Amino acid sequence: MKNTIGNVLKLTVFGESHGEAIGCVLDGLPSGMVINEDYIVSVMQKRQGLSAVSTGRREADHVSILSGVYHGKTEGTPLALLIRNSDVRSADYSSIEDLVRPGHADYTAEIRYEGYQDKRGGGHFSGRLTAALTAAGAILMHALEEEGILIGTHIQRLHGITDRSFGEDLACDMELLKEREFPVLDDEQAERMIAEIKDAKEKGDSVGGILETAVTGLPAGLGEPMFGSVESRISEALFSIGAVKGVTFGIGTAFADLYGSEANDPFAYRDGKIITLSNHNGGVNGGITNGMPVCFQTVIKPTPSISLPQKTVNLKTKENTVMEIRGRHDPAVIHRAAVVVNAMTAFVLADLLSEAYGRSWLRVLRERDNDDR
Amino acid sequence: MKNTIGNVLKLTVFGESHGEAIGCVLDGLPSGMVINEDYIVSVMQKRQGLSAVSTGRREADHVSILSGVYHGKTEGTPLALLIRNSDVRSADYSSIEDLVRPGHADYTAEIRYEGYQDKRGGGHFSGRLTAALTAAGAILMHALEEEGILIGTHIQRLHGITDRSFGEDLACDMELLKEREFPVLDDEQAERMIAEIKDAKEKGDSVGGILETAVTGLPAGLGEPMFGSVESRISEALFSIGAVKGVTFGIGTAFADLYGSEANDPFAYRDGKIITLSNHNGGVNGGITNGMPVCFQTVIKPTPSISLPQKTVNLKTKENTVMEIRGRHDPAVIHRAAVVVNAMTAFVLADLLSEAYGRSWLRVLRERDNDDR
Amino acid sequence: MKNTIGNVLKLTVFGESHGEAIGCVLDGLPSGMVINEDYIVSVMQKRQGLSAVSTGRREADHVSILSGVYHGKTEGTPLALLIRNSDVRSADYSSIEDLVRPGHADYTAEIRYEGYQDKRGGGHFSGRLTAALTAAGAILMHALEEEGILIGTHIQRLHGITDRSFGEDLACDMELLKEREFPVLDDEQAERMIAEIKDAKEKGDSVGGILETAVTGLPAGLGEPMFGSVESRISEALFSIGAVKGVTFGIGTAFADLYGSEANDPFAYRDGKIITLSNHNGGVNGGITNGMPVCFQTVIKPTPSISLPQKTVNLKTKENTVMEIRGRHDPAVIHRAAVVVNAMTAFVLADLLSEAYGRSWLRVLRERDNDDR
Amino acid sequence: MKNTIGNVLKLTVFGESHGEAIGCVLDGLPSGMVINEDYIVSVMQKRQGLSAVSTGRREADHVSILSGVYHGKTEGTPLALLIRNSDVRSADYSSIEDLVRPGHADYTAEIRYEGYQDKRGGGHFSGRLTAALTAAGAILMHALEEEGILIGTHIQRLHGITDRSFGEDLACDMELLKEREFPVLDDEQAERMIAEIKDAKEKGDSVGGILETAVTGLPAGLGEPMFGSVESRISEALFSIGAVKGVTFGIGTAFADLYGSEANDPFAYRDGKIITLSNHNGGVNGGITNGMPVCFQTVIKPTPSISLPQKTVNLKTKENTVMEIRGRHDPAVIHRAAVVVNAMTAFVLADLLSEAYGRSWLRVLRERDNDDR
Repeated sequence: MKNTIGNVLKLTVFGESHGEAIGCVLDGLPSGMVINEDYIVSVMQKRQGLSAVSTGRREADHVSILSGVYHGKTEGTPLALLIRNSDVRSADYSSIEDLVRPGHADYTAEIRYEGYQDKRGGGHFSGRLTAALTAAGAILMHALEEEGILIGTHIQRLHGITDRSFGEDLACDMELLKEREFPVLDDEQAERMIAEIKDAKEKGDSVGGILETAVTGLPAGLGEPMFGSVESRISEALFSIGAVKGVTFGIGTAFADLYGSEANDPFAYRDGKIITLSNHNGGVNGGITNGMPVCFQTVIKPTPSISLPQKTVNLKTKENTVMEIRGRHDPAVIHRAAVVVNAMTAFVLADLLSEAYGRSWLRVLRERDNDDR
Repeated sequence: MKNTIGNVLKLTVFGESHGEAIGCVLDGLPSGMVINEDYIVSVMQKRQGLSAVSTGRREADHVSILSGVYHGKTEGTPLALLIRNSDVRSADYSSIEDLVRPGHADYTAEIRYEGYQDKRGGGHFSGRLTAALTAAGAILMHALEEEGILIGTHIQRLHGITDRSFGEDLACDMELLKEREFPVLDDEQAERMIAEIKDAKEKGDSVGGILETAVTGLPAGLGEPMFGSVESRISEALFSIGAVKGVTFGIGTAFADLYGSEANDPFAYRDGKIITLSNHNGGVNGGITNGMPVCFQTVIKPTPSISLPQKTVNLKTKENTVMEIRGRHDPAVIHRAAVVVNAMTAFVLADLLSEAYGRSWLRVLRERDNDDR
Repeated sequence: MKNTIGNVLKLTVFGESHGEAIGCVLDGLPSGMVINEDYIVSVMQKRQGLSAVSTGRREADHVSILSGVYHGKTEGTPLALLIRNSDVRSADYSSIEDLVRPGHADYTAEIRYEGYQDKRGGGHFSGRLTAALTAAGAILMHALEEEGILIGTHIQRLHGITDRSFGEDLACDMELLKEREFPVLDDEQAERMIAEIKDAKEKGDSVGGILETAVTGLPAGLGEPMFGSVESRISEALFSIGAVKGVTFGIGTAFADLYGSEANDPFAYRDGKIITLSNHNGGVNGGITNGMPVCFQTVIKPTPSISLPQKTVNLKTKENTVMEIRGRHDPAVIHRAAVVVNAMTAFVLADLLSEAYGRSWLRVLRERDNDDR
Repeated sequence: MKNTIGNVLKLTVFGESHGEAIGCVLDGLPSGMVINEDYIVSVMQKRQGLSAVSTGRREADHVSILSGVYHGKTEGTPLALLIRNSDVRSADYSSIEDLVRPGHADYTAEIRYEGYQDKRGGGHFSGRLTAALTAAGAILMHALEEEGILIGTHIQRLHGITDRSFGEDLACDMELLKEREFPVLDDEQAERMIAEIKDAKEKGDSVGGILETAVTGLPAGLGEPMFGSVESRISEALFSIGAVKGVTFGIGTAFADLYGSEANDPFAYRDGKIITLSNHNGGVNGGITNGMPVCFQTVIKPTPSISLPQKTVNLKTKENTVMEIRGRHDPAVIHRAAVVVNAMTAFVLADLLSEAYGRSWLRVLRERDNDDR
């Protein structure tokens, strides 16, 4: 699928870090969906990250919608979203063009594209492309929110520092995350994490961590067996984010140490609904949503761009050498990745809803809401 | 994608646990690929698991190839693989038909299929369908092996018991795993794990764990950026296996506690090749293979079928109740899942090779091998 | 897409003419759809053609449904349909194995599959595979009929002999075609066509023609702009039938000689509905159904299998030579192709309905019908 | 597939006639393909048509390549092509906004998009979007030409006037068509057609016709059986062009009146190659290219925009009324459609080549050429 993802809803991404623009085409939206530009702007800003711990590169990241929207609502035709690259300092990279940066895609891109790729700033492999994913996702996050489907992500763990888990009152935590500038539930741990990132920056190094995401308000019955499982779909989408190296659902790796009798989620009938008394399986059984919150974790590796000297090879001369990467680096991207994870999750959910309910899935959701009252 | 997966190579799966047959269609294979029936049989037997710790249900699991093979070689047209369901004891299930089993897809299937699904033995959601995945995968594993691409999986961890990691001499470990009846590298740990499974069985309970997989011999440059990343493709495929709840690459969750300077894999030029001096990223940078072994972990939850009493709901009466599941259960499926993980990995790799090299990918691999000599 | 077609609904076909079996997997059906086996049998028989003018090969063409159906209704999981090859006389073909038959796929298959394909009876390229398409289509034709969507096809032209066009009272013509053993509206022309086919047979030759299809009862608004146009989708499906060499919509080639003022279909509001006063565009504007009958023509070439001597090449010796094809041939397949055209049309329509209305498209159609009353 | 087409190569189109821009994303190109901007400009100009018989709307149609090209060559990453809409006179349309134009997509778009679509100038259904198809196609036409694969289209018939057929010396005719401003082989017939178009314009009417296309230099063995037939793929692509109402291959409708013995193309071995002595099947047997020129016809309906009064309905008031469409209309689009047919054909061929030969299909073609010398 390369740069296009989705079954009924399709997202196609393009662009290079130092090219003219990046962007995407989002096709298959219902007609009449409200486009809230302020909402998009606020999500784009969140992706830029807390300035104290984020990149020196400051793009306006203005999203132009070139098509598919008329009088503030979706037409149902494809949306082309364009983000110009303005703050480009290619000079920072030219000196190291023949040296492949460890942990980056420089070497694999060289093999895959036979040397024809734009190497500046990582080219098509740059984290900058997640701005396009975020823009598309923001449109869907807004639409889902309007129908009571909320997506929230916090940093569960960062270089050994751990946030508290999502609490019993998930709605409250989701609300809290919407307000947070830095996506951590416990204020004290947030402070410690920020200090850790600053410390890494001073060392010329970087840190990674694990994100935890919850989705509330989803109907039961979304997803498909086998290759169309909710887990297959979400993981496929999340692994498109460069820094992601793992995706686990429910209690994740903890499954390895439990008995089945501990891991299984018992069913119960309460207040006219079938629920599970625990949610170890993260809201998904057999690949299909069961109506409980969908929960998963995303492993984010430390940013590969560090300023410490690193061993590498000169592609032209084939000499072993040591490189130092200058320029602007993020000592951590995990807080920014949280926004992209939300965006891609929104995309997958909207695609699942489209498959289940057809073009008018927003209306089906709305009618469901009315029935509940 | 529901029951079909793949970009150039397509795998379509069908069947229910207690229906007439299960099977799959595998389309897009190169012509002239040798079909080794003994190899298929041996892989199918491995999936059945060590009899001491596996299910009472013993299917012959004979794979009939109905099309696409002529004189022992693939034609290039679709292979239809059929496995009859012979050892079916539906009576075991009928008494509990209205009770949804915790940890199973019974409830979500009921919502998704509106009650029309065959509930016997989990129907289309049964682990039995992995026999079809395994049959298809075995054909590809054999072809890849012939070209020097080996896939090996061991149980890294089972209910708190840990195997040794893959060693420096990966070729040796791969060979060792081919011989193993129970896929564990360290004999002593294998004994402990088997004892643990037997113990769980006696308790009427079950255990899960984590698998670790390595693939050696892959060329650099496979995969695509964004949604076509090797990680996206492998995880999409693995999450189609019912018991899988997590997929992590390289050092996986350990990324959360490392500095970038520790996590990055330095490049070096040695013996006419560019390699990395460590392999924390699991052979994939920016979604594309870098020529090092591709390594990942798969989290397997404890088998949900246990004989201990469990809380649940009667779907018809909406009463809260307690159920006991009779019949044959696996106290662990992780050793059997190892085979399915190998099979699905082989499928994804063959699809990636098809995309990169076209119809004649086997020949391209062969010529590569000759060039190396 | 090779042997799989469809966006939401997926059809995957497999098999060779003289292999063990042919069949298909039909995935993405709504759950609870009634399977009428008598209806399937009657459609399969129609595809066998009027015995007086059809092939000597008489297969039982019994369709086994191996999965996806429970208690006579679809589960919503994939249906695997299997048709055994029983009446196989490979000896008829062996003598000519190295000679490529003009008009057949023998030569192109040799190039495409590098000689590994099963050559007997045309292998995977045999018209026999349309039995699998027909079986899948029959299931959908029945479901559509139940909701008032009828598909009818007649032979508009056969070797210079012309049937009358569909009349004003299309419902009446559709009914008439359901009864017809040989799909022609005008009895006298039917007699002439049958005589013409018999005459061709006596000469050792064959004839082709043009089919005309009408679909009534479709809602407006199905289809998509650009590559998802109803015309794109129907033509893609029809050209998968070996004998088809052309597909035209509405008045087809007659558009070439009309003024726009003659070709355009004026709109009118009548009895609470917007209709067009003519239907030159065949029920489709801009790729999307307008609520009028969808009409198209399919060009069927003369059966390439004839017993007259033909010039050809021996693939092994590269000698120019003359061959005579023995065995059983259809002097015409157009009347049989009519059934396959209906089947593939039903598939495309069901796929379009799935995309528009989601999983529950049958229910949406049913509610529409109730609203109309 | 909506606005995305292709299996390995993917083309995604966006935009509305009177929006900010139209464009497309072309993903899956080989790296290192030369981008010839002059060639693109010349193809874009051809699409604008001979000014004497074409639309008053004159767009610069400047194609900006926003990504995927570096130093004049493709990187292998997605190309985003953007064409700004400059010459927009929306006022022309506003007065008729509630009247649905006969032969246009106004009514079907209203149903499909529930009134949210941009109605100005036909919005997403405008012929203007073919500029994006043409830009993408031009890139591929140039690459194919470099490897000796030529695509040529002429007007076979226009409102009763007929051009001569492609001659024995197809290479000569292809060369001739490259030079032609108006794509007709016979100069005299070209004059008559131009006069006919002018005459229609004076009457406030429009005319259609039939295009004939030939592709030379294709290798044998491209395409797939069943749904992946070359005919399926080309027709799917061509029916995405709004004016197309029919696609026929080889001798097309003439198959209806021939005997099999006349229609079959005998094989012969000549000069070290297997060829067919006639080419009635248009270079395709069983869905796969046989190495002879691929030939097909495309039926183009008369432009629906005419200035004569036409019966229609007011969507708001539901009143039957008569409308007159003002503004700029093309009295014929067939000569412009010829360019779009070439473009879409180039896309399909490049996709087929990608599937057959993988990422390096250009190199495989080049090596083939060298072998031939």
